[in-house]
Amino acid sequence: MNFDPIDFIALKKDGKEHAPQEIRAFIDNVVSGDIPDYQVTAWLMAVCLNDLSFAETSALTMAIAESGKIYRWDQSGLPIVDKHSTGGVGDSATLIVASLVASMGMRMGKHSGRGLGHTGGTIDKLESIPGFRTDLSEQEFKNIVRSVGCAIAGQDEEMTPADGILYGLRDVTATVNHQALIASSIMSKKIAGGAKSILLDIKVGSGAFMENLGQARSLADLLIRLGESAGVNVKPLMTSMDVPLGRAVGNALEVKEAINVLDNKTPSDDPLRVVSIEIAARLSGMCGIEPLEEARLTAAGKIEDGDALNKFRKMIEMQGGDPGVVDEPDKIIPSAGTILKIPSPEEGYIAGCDAFKIGELVRDLGGGRKSKFDAIDREVGLILKVRRNDRVEYGQTLCEVHKNDAVSETEVAERVLDAFRIVSVSPGMADLILN
Amino acid sequence: MNFDPIDFIALKKDGKEHAPQEIRAFIDNVVSGDIPDYQVTAWLMAVCLNDLSFAETSALTMAIAESGKIYRWDQSGLPIVDKHSTGGVGDSATLIVASLVASMGMRMGKHSGRGLGHTGGTIDKLESIPGFRTDLSEQEFKNIVRSVGCAIAGQDEEMTPADGILYGLRDVTATVNHQALIASSIMSKKIAGGAKSILLDIKVGSGAFMENLGQARSLADLLIRLGESAGVNVKPLMTSMDVPLGRAVGNALEVKEAINVLDNKTPSDDPLRVVSIEIAARLSGMCGIEPLEEARLTAAGKIEDGDALNKFRKMIEMQGGDPGVVDEPDKIIPSAGTILKIPSPEEGYIAGCDAFKIGELVRDLGGGRKSKFDAIDREVGLILKVRRNDRVEYGQTLCEVHKNDAVSETEVAERVLDAFRIVSVSPGMADLILN
Repeated sequence: MNFDPIDFIALKKDGKEHAPQEIRAFIDNVVSGDIPDYQVTAWLMAVCLNDLSFAETSALTMAIAESGKIYRWDQSGLPIVDKHSTGGVGDSATLIVASLVASMGMRMGKHSGRGLGHTGGTIDKLESIPGFRTDLSEQEFKNIVRSVGCAIAGQDEEMTPADGILYGLRDVTATVNHQALIASSIMSKKIAGGAKSILLDIKVGSGAFMENLGQARSLADLLIRLGESAGVNVKPLMTSMDVPLGRAVGNALEVKEAINVLDNKTPSDDPLRVVSIEIAARLSGMCGIEPLEEARLTAAGKIEDGDALNKFRKMIEMQGGDPGVVDEPDKIIPSAGTILKIPSPEEGYIAGCDAFKIGELVRDLGGGRKSKFDAIDREVGLILKVRRNDRVEYGQTLCEVHKNDAVSETEVAERVLDAFRIVSVSPGMADLILN
Repeated sequence: MNFDPIDFIALKKDGKEHAPQEIRAFIDNVVSGDIPDYQVTAWLMAVCLNDLSFAETSALTMAIAESGKIYRWDQSGLPIVDKHSTGGVGDSATLIVASLVASMGMRMGKHSGRGLGHTGGTIDKLESIPGFRTDLSEQEFKNIVRSVGCAIAGQDEEMTPADGILYGLRDVTATVNHQALIASSIMSKKIAGGAKSILLDIKVGSGAFMENLGQARSLADLLIRLGESAGVNVKPLMTSMDVPLGRAVGNALEVKEAINVLDNKTPSDDPLRVVSIEIAARLSGMCGIEPLEEARLTAAGKIEDGDALNKFRKMIEMQGGDPGVVDEPDKIIPSAGTILKIPSPEEGYIAGCDAFKIGELVRDLGGGRKSKFDAIDREVGLILKVRRNDRVEYGQTLCEVHKNDAVSETEVAERVLDAFRIVSVSPGMADLILN
């Protein structure tokens, strides 16, 4: 089709609706390089201010999904599931969920991203394991999923090239935060990944990209409708991200914590364990394997009997990593140079530990990236020693900070204390699962 | 100042107001090349959709004006005036006005543009005169203004480089048509040109960029306020552009017509003559030389006594052109290969001759540009043989088309007839000067 980018931009500037085939032609031209960046960004800004209809968002999602390689799975075998988190702090659930679903009769071939800003990335975390490879060929990836039941790889460069281009331009033109663009980016990658049942872990709270439940619900609704249009079953789970999900924040520390959960060493109300079981159980329900209540028990059982940990061990081995880390988590890259204990400046109850501030601190310690080209320090991070509603005494350790030289001890202590909120009356527990 | 382009774009995306020094920093960074095009266009689109306040538009205008060379004139001598037309069809008034004001005790050192789309450009027209140079150095330009009283040159590349960059990007991102961007582009160039009294000829009607008087008034008001902020006296003149202003449309043909007016060969109600005298007279009034009524008589007198034509002859000579064209207009580049007479298909009265359609036809004949890189054919164009309210008989010539091979005779005839509107009852005259 004869595509005129100026007319295309003008239409959206004037608040009108694109035909699906125009959006397809636009994306084709973006990927072929026939539309210069400066036209793409003008359109992106027009979209942010004049929005996309559902039909446009759906067309955009499919066009991005089909701009590159689509993974095809044998749909007659065990069900292929996937999960997506909108990004949190101290959240290593993907590692646990992949192992869990593999032990529960599902398969998960997951492409994950790297961390950016205050949130961590699964690939960065896994690369703390000596030898672990995330750059798997399609064949290796599928083989591991077939034999273990799960595999976690980095983005396949041949998948959704349009998303890479659009995201790169959104990142530098203040056009990241727009619902239709966010939704098409998420769903296009999921559709290209080939799973037919996808659980969305929508994070809500200070440490999430969406701070209120309304925004989160609205995004979830859009993702579900986009899934429907593409023949994919998508369900939302809303979870709180006011405080970090796990006790550990930081790449190697989070892998150790995930092993700890899989090794059945955490209490049954441990938030990371609870959320991971909930995700796996909901996926089981979506696939029609078991009703949710039973699936939760099954998932807990797979942790208790070591099956889930075995899947994790096997996945590590098949992806070239040292499976011994499962038994000796200290074999994961060495601890940071300094471990700093931060004492409570008062007595009282923990009312909050701002996930965003903690995420930013760990990023600044070197554990994350400000720009996608930054190198990261996988050793650094935090271990929270107290939880919401815990009673603390003066001088009691609130958290341990694992640091090298990026931030001074004084600043670290100040920032940790700024993140914590300590009150005199017990604030009670807060809901973890919000729907 | 430490300038973050992403924050800058985000602010306008969020509908907030930039501080003047932020706009200055943005323009500085655009000119230095430190902001990539894709960020500039995202901001331009945000401006189109969220607008600029007057303070922002004023800051943008000054930043663009001061992004390059500013012409300084000896303000103790004769007043320096300028005119600006928002772009019309068959409008060679600049040639006449420059000669008139020079003969009336003012000076006009005018930088003009080339034609784009359906409107012509003064520089393209003047280059029909053998030898005429429009690429004058600042020194040459000032010398000619000093000795003749007028000079017309192309854009000085060292003036308002920011405008060139912004305009180039607006042109390809559907962000041309926005009032604050149009106004800052016009006024920044005028401010850099150094005149202290500027008459704006705001065209209204089918052949103008603004089709209604409300839009035109609103742009005029903004230009006047921007002038005030910069210490420049700006006045608007609104003129009708429903039909071409002159009888000639096309580069060489318009120069011949301008000479015809300056040579006092047109009747006193000839629209091109009337508008040219009005502009020159208003400028005289603005400079306090004469009240408007008297200035109109003075201007007409300068045409009648040949003074204005002499100024034009002298300007041509000083700019390297053949001054003989003034006495023998046929010395201007030769006529086009074919002269086609278009007969009236019916009897009646001329009710209209759509300036936009005529402008487009001449452009397609080769007389204008679709893109700024197109070459043009200065020979081609139209001579209108009838005017609004004229009685025409069946078969009477409506116009002569001077053409080479770009458009077929059949298409030319169809398009001319499509532009004309012939009715059975006399429609009366229409106002030429609208304020």
